[in-house]
Amino acid sequence: MIAGTFRAASPRAFFGFVAGCALASVAGAVAAVTPAERGEAAVAAVDPFIGTGGEGHTFPGAVVPFGMVQLSPDTQLKTRKEGYGWAAGYRYDDRTIFGFSHTHFSGTGHSDLGDFLVMPTTGDVRLEPGDAAVPGSGYHSRFDHATEQAQPGYYAVTLDDYGVRAELTASARVGWHRYAFPEGKPAHVTLDLRPSMYDYPGKVSWARLRVRADGTITGMRETRGWAPGRQLYFALRFSQPLAGHALHNTEKDVPYKGFAPPAANAPELRAQIEGRQLVGVFDFASKGAPLVAKLAISPVDEDGAIANLDREAPGWDFDAVRTAARAQWAQALGVFEVAAPDATRKAFFTALYHTMMGPSLFMDADGRYRGPDNAVHAADGFTNYSTFSLWDTYRALHPLLTLIQPPQRTNDFVRSLLAARRHSAYGILPVWAFHGLETWCMIGYHAVPVIADAYMKGIRDYPLDEALAAMVASATYAPYGGLESYMKLGYVAIDREGEAASKTLEYAFDDWTIAQVARDMGKRDVARRFDERAGNWRHAFDAKTGFMRARKSDGRFREPFDPTASGYGTDYTEGNAWQYSWYVPHDVHGLIKALGGDGKLVAKLDAVFDAKVDPKLFEHMEDITGLIGWYAHGNEPSHHVAYLYDYAGQPWRTQERLKQIVDSQYHARPDGLAGNDDLGQMSAWYAFTTLGFYPVAPASNEYAIGRPFVERATLHLPNGKTFTVRASPLDDAHPYVGSVTLNGKPLATSALRHEDIVAGGELAFTMQAQPNKAWATSRDARPGRRIGL
Amino acid sequence: MIAGTFRAASPRAFFGFVAGCALASVAGAVAAVTPAERGEAAVAAVDPFIGTGGEGHTFPGAVVPFGMVQLSPDTQLKTRKEGYGWAAGYRYDDRTIFGFSHTHFSGTGHSDLGDFLVMPTTGDVRLEPGDAAVPGSGYHSRFDHATEQAQPGYYAVTLDDYGVRAELTASARVGWHRYAFPEGKPAHVTLDLRPSMYDYPGKVSWARLRVRADGTITGMRETRGWAPGRQLYFALRFSQPLAGHALHNTEKDVPYKGFAPPAANAPELRAQIEGRQLVGVFDFASKGAPLVAKLAISPVDEDGAIANLDREAPGWDFDAVRTAARAQWAQALGVFEVAAPDATRKAFFTALYHTMMGPSLFMDADGRYRGPDNAVHAADGFTNYSTFSLWDTYRALHPLLTLIQPPQRTNDFVRSLLAARRHSAYGILPVWAFHGLETWCMIGYHAVPVIADAYMKGIRDYPLDEALAAMVASATYAPYGGLESYMKLGYVAIDREGEAASKTLEYAFDDWTIAQVARDMGKRDVARRFDERAGNWRHAFDAKTGFMRARKSDGRFREPFDPTASGYGTDYTEGNAWQYSWYVPHDVHGLIKALGGDGKLVAKLDAVFDAKVDPKLFEHMEDITGLIGWYAHGNEPSHHVAYLYDYAGQPWRTQERLKQIVDSQYHARPDGLAGNDDLGQMSAWYAFTTLGFYPVAPASNEYAIGRPFVERATLHLPNGKTFTVRASPLDDAHPYVGSVTLNGKPLATSALRHEDIVAGGELAFTMQAQPNKAWATSRDARPGRRIGL
Repeated sequence: MIAGTFRAASPRAFFGFVAGCALASVAGAVAAVTPAERGEAAVAAVDPFIGTGGEGHTFPGAVVPFGMVQLSPDTQLKTRKEGYGWAAGYRYDDRTIFGFSHTHFSGTGHSDLGDFLVMPTTGDVRLEPGDAAVPGSGYHSRFDHATEQAQPGYYAVTLDDYGVRAELTASARVGWHRYAFPEGKPAHVTLDLRPSMYDYPGKVSWARLRVRADGTITGMRETRGWAPGRQLYFALRFSQPLAGHALHNTEKDVPYKGFAPPAANAPELRAQIEGRQLVGVFDFASKGAPLVAKLAISPVDEDGAIANLDREAPGWDFDAVRTAARAQWAQALGVFEVAAPDATRKAFFTALYHTMMGPSLFMDADGRYRGPDNAVHAADGFTNYSTFSLWDTYRALHPLLTLIQPPQRTNDFVRSLLAARRHSAYGILPVWAFHGLETWCMIGYHAVPVIADAYMKGIRDYPLDEALAAMVASATYAPYGGLESYMKLGYVAIDREGEAASKTLEYAFDDWTIAQVARDMGKRDVARRFDERAGNWRHAFDAKTGFMRARKSDGRFREPFDPTASGYGTDYTEGNAWQYSWYVPHDVHGLIKALGGDGKLVAKLDAVFDAKVDPKLFEHMEDITGLIGWYAHGNEPSHHVAYLYDYAGQPWRTQERLKQIVDSQYHARPDGLAGNDDLGQMSAWYAFTTLGFYPVAPASNEYAIGRPFVERATLHLPNGKTFTVRASPLDDAHPYVGSVTLNGKPLATSALRHEDIVAGGELAFTMQAQPNKAWATSRDARPGRRIGL
Repeated sequence: MIAGTFRAASPRAFFGFVAGCALASVAGAVAAVTPAERGEAAVAAVDPFIGTGGEGHTFPGAVVPFGMVQLSPDTQLKTRKEGYGWAAGYRYDDRTIFGFSHTHFSGTGHSDLGDFLVMPTTGDVRLEPGDAAVPGSGYHSRFDHATEQAQPGYYAVTLDDYGVRAELTASARVGWHRYAFPEGKPAHVTLDLRPSMYDYPGKVSWARLRVRADGTITGMRETRGWAPGRQLYFALRFSQPLAGHALHNTEKDVPYKGFAPPAANAPELRAQIEGRQLVGVFDFASKGAPLVAKLAISPVDEDGAIANLDREAPGWDFDAVRTAARAQWAQALGVFEVAAPDATRKAFFTALYHTMMGPSLFMDADGRYRGPDNAVHAADGFTNYSTFSLWDTYRALHPLLTLIQPPQRTNDFVRSLLAARRHSAYGILPVWAFHGLETWCMIGYHAVPVIADAYMKGIRDYPLDEALAAMVASATYAPYGGLESYMKLGYVAIDREGEAASKTLEYAFDDWTIAQVARDMGKRDVARRFDERAGNWRHAFDAKTGFMRARKSDGRFREPFDPTASGYGTDYTEGNAWQYSWYVPHDVHGLIKALGGDGKLVAKLDAVFDAKVDPKLFEHMEDITGLIGWYAHGNEPSHHVAYLYDYAGQPWRTQERLKQIVDSQYHARPDGLAGNDDLGQMSAWYAFTTLGFYPVAPASNEYAIGRPFVERATLHLPNGKTFTVRASPLDDAHPYVGSVTLNGKPLATSALRHEDIVAGGELAFTMQAQPNKAWATSRDARPGRRIGL
């Protein structure tokens, strides 16, 4: 409907300030844009509320890229034992804020964190959070979205019950709060060490709270949640002197004959308390300038938190910190210039924003951090990161970050993974780690493809031999996830280990990436061994049904078989046979052959997308959302599936499916994500897909080409070059790729090489109304031809 | 009955090997004795079982002087929730051993520790300790005292249920085990992280257990007991390779959606577990040489424990470690040569042995330790100690250690106390601390007299200004123990604070010691202020009843008043008016005057000792034991009382009472202590009293003279000089001091100056059958004349 020029009814913008210009002039204007302007335009396009509704599980609070502190409002405490819905602390539908806590996951399907909840109040002190349904029943407050502001590095809201204007910003290790209290009422700040995402009795195994002589508040808490024995420390300072304080333990503690610290019954005289249920209340004169509070966290100890505060947050200039946070985001997001409809720009830059929440910094200013052994280590020449949601993020997030972030970021990720392995009792790479600790969540050894993808792209500033050794160790640790039977039988035996079909498939892919690296390193034995293992997907393939299935130790498939069945611990991981049977990213052509040819794959894929599926079928599976037939965009096993038509020589079907997915699964509104953002994987899928290509097989250095959803996007690569994608005309009437040029020359393949991107250049798509059934249909024009087994 | 010469019927020994010689020749032989022989004789006289029966609460295990590891058998786990009786883990009446744990208190009346219980077993593995009453119900074993051996630094026993000979020895930070397993049965070592002294659900708040690739077992546990949030780490190595292992969590843990480490259901494949109820079982081939296990503890972390193991215990030579431990004791105990009846020598050297259990080392080999803030600190130029049972030990234990240990020991104690204060949230010196943590147990600020006593004796290798500042801070921290009312009113007001009478009295003494130090430092203002406070005991004195009493804020004594009443939180601390009313050690002459003269005091004291008291009166008070009338030798408030007759000019009455106490309260047998040894205070009283003098008022540099219970004792002072006490004749027929000479010159006073001891010399008592009512009766001949207010 729209072609070539902008219309008021469907506003488009290159940056916010050039809306209404013709595309050509917009393009001409780009060269004159400074990096700062580019960054500011990118930041302005971000809407942190996207994903905070529905089950996106993102949060709207203040964070810097990859920051350790992720400071955000929490809107429900009472029901957090439900975990899933409030995994990020905030749900857009809620109208009550319980406080602002300093650690959050962005987009997880499981819950933890929510450390160090701070809440400003006035009037009578309430120690309990209260019930959101009962105003005044606790320290919580009602709020109105109309008073909210959320921008990269900044969040503000008015707490209606108290008339307090609350603003948040952050640096890497410090959360900043600015509270404007109404005059004339007692002003308090409550620091609650009790609540967590996914709360239950005994979640906090220990905590400490101390008011130091200089007014610094320090403490820690240790929780037994998703990661067990997790310790986190803090140091908190206020811009105004304490008018008073009270330290409470709300649990009747296990006493030993009643010995108690001085003035144990006078919370206002306590200088230090320990226990499991601690809450501190700090009083201030509620007049004059707003109160600024800054809270640093440390994985190490209270001294570490104080040092983080001293080094990172020396003054009281909230606005300067806010400006610096915004500048960091401008630099990170400003790598892209995008011309697209407003909603697309908003969704794109917000997605990009969400790809830089994790892995997150996990290291004190002095380089100390905790490893999976829960011991303190010193990072030797690297920056330590944690929160590796690897089952999700190896697919597209890590590949994306190699393009949009300096290689040092990925090198540090790899070094962090290697360090974690060194400190692991099992001698293997992290599986799903946060705050340094292993959770054993999900399946696979997907740190392997993250490292392999980096290595194959030439990002290699880490000990290469150690990297390969770590990959091999992770792939051969027999007690892990059925690897014993996998190594012995060539598949994970379902009578030995749950979710065997999914495991066999994902292991085979991970193994292939090891072979890639080993071959490049000249380690032929290793390459041969893992090339062989990479073919293990065939042991899961049931030629009779055409599905990937779980096999028993005796070699037989488990019966009865229902390709629609799913459930935790069944043959598949968060999915069924319809969803998992296409996971051979490193050998799609082998899969096609096994299925019986291109047509068979296309028919299967169509059956996936076009099935009539009652969503109730997945009501018992929280993570299977975003359904299009069996295709579940809200969960990762589906993420590469739409691109598989390319491999069957029908790229126009990929183009159709991508439009179907983008139109239905991403919206520039709070409930705009079809499922958990999963530390940026959902967003990374969107970013790649918007640009027109996707890394179906990480470590292959190949992307499958889909179709762009932007008129133009220019990526300023870390190496200083630029890579531009263009699509014309871009509208609903021209959903198909007619032709593609790379640097002006026709591109005949639906595959794009990584080196073509990093060399800089332009990938231009001519879009058309009808499918081009001639382009990229020949065998050699399809992705996967150069990477297969 | 015995005079001048030894008789076979009542064997005496100077050393074991000179029994039977005439005293004169013994004396002559001394000069030829080498320090090594002296030490060996002293060690041979120690019986570690003394105090393990009754309520002495000592333990028979292996320890070096002031060692961090105190490794000993634990004979009851099931009833440990009772706490009191099994405070040291071992009771002589028991016939079951549950294992050998690495930390114990020596003689406390409260319970904690019992960390890292190790038990060798054979046959089927049992994970639970079981019930002592039901043989075979758990991993415990029956044992017979006949198989036991306990010597300084060594303990051995045969575990009858398994036929395992178990031996223990120790270095400062490492506990050594040697287990001879019978051949042909599966041999196991169980490491149980669950049990504690005084156990209750939730006592262990977190624990970790890990089998490292090199076979080292490491881990930690965190407990919420007498000291909250106490973390202790360990590293354990075996002399033989593991034939297998299994790591168990016996608590159904709080799961998070069931994520679990590799092979979670196969304990034998686990490399690391975390939780609250952990137990590890390690399997060995039960043939060949005995298995040696060495376990290092660390207050800091697992790496610290490994380093302690590496530095302190490099090899596998159990016997060499045993020999070294014995040599350390020989050096420490060999400062004394004692000629006395065997039972007295045994009691004396065992008492001396028990005075070197605490304060104990609390620092890794690299100088790191944890403070009251539970943070890790590095000792800068000193050795850090903890386990300060100060309410007990300031009285005689610390004064004794200034005489028998190098000054560096006391300097390190003082530096440890000052460091603890620097890290205290309250800015005050420890009250009752162990493992670095404050327990707030008992009353007073008795770190103050410990420092003052050291300072006044010229032991001053610590920052003196800081020391005085710390003393003043501890005495003026208003929220502590009623100090607010004490500072305002001159007494602790009973309507504000329990046990007010005891507190007022003890504070006044502590204050007097501050004045002593301040005066010497030339801080006249401070001296004046605390001299004034030292007189606050008068506010507790009720002239009408002649008792010390608790006063209310309005100035009136609390009514009704019952001088026999006692109870936790009453007017007195572990005592009643009859027991506490004589606690003015720094101003006994003021007390005499207040009472109405010498005769009044003597009458009161006689009333104390001669009262007919039904012991049932104190059944509700665990610590009030060792009764002679109201006099309770089993508890500290009585410890100076027998010496008070000296102050009234009736030293023969002191002599009588001392004989009465020594004869009835100390015996060289397991139940030979009348009450809790209290980290050596009971023993220090005995050591001093045996020598013939006692530090009634620490920091006065004055001792009240009693009467010796040895024929001769020579103390080899740290300064290289010797101080010898002689008594002749020493027998029951001559219980009174006839005359005393110091270095051959008559000593007319019943007071002895500290400088007279450290100058070296000889204090000779001529004993006689009848009291000498002329000696030391005049005002100036009494103790206290030179130290009063």
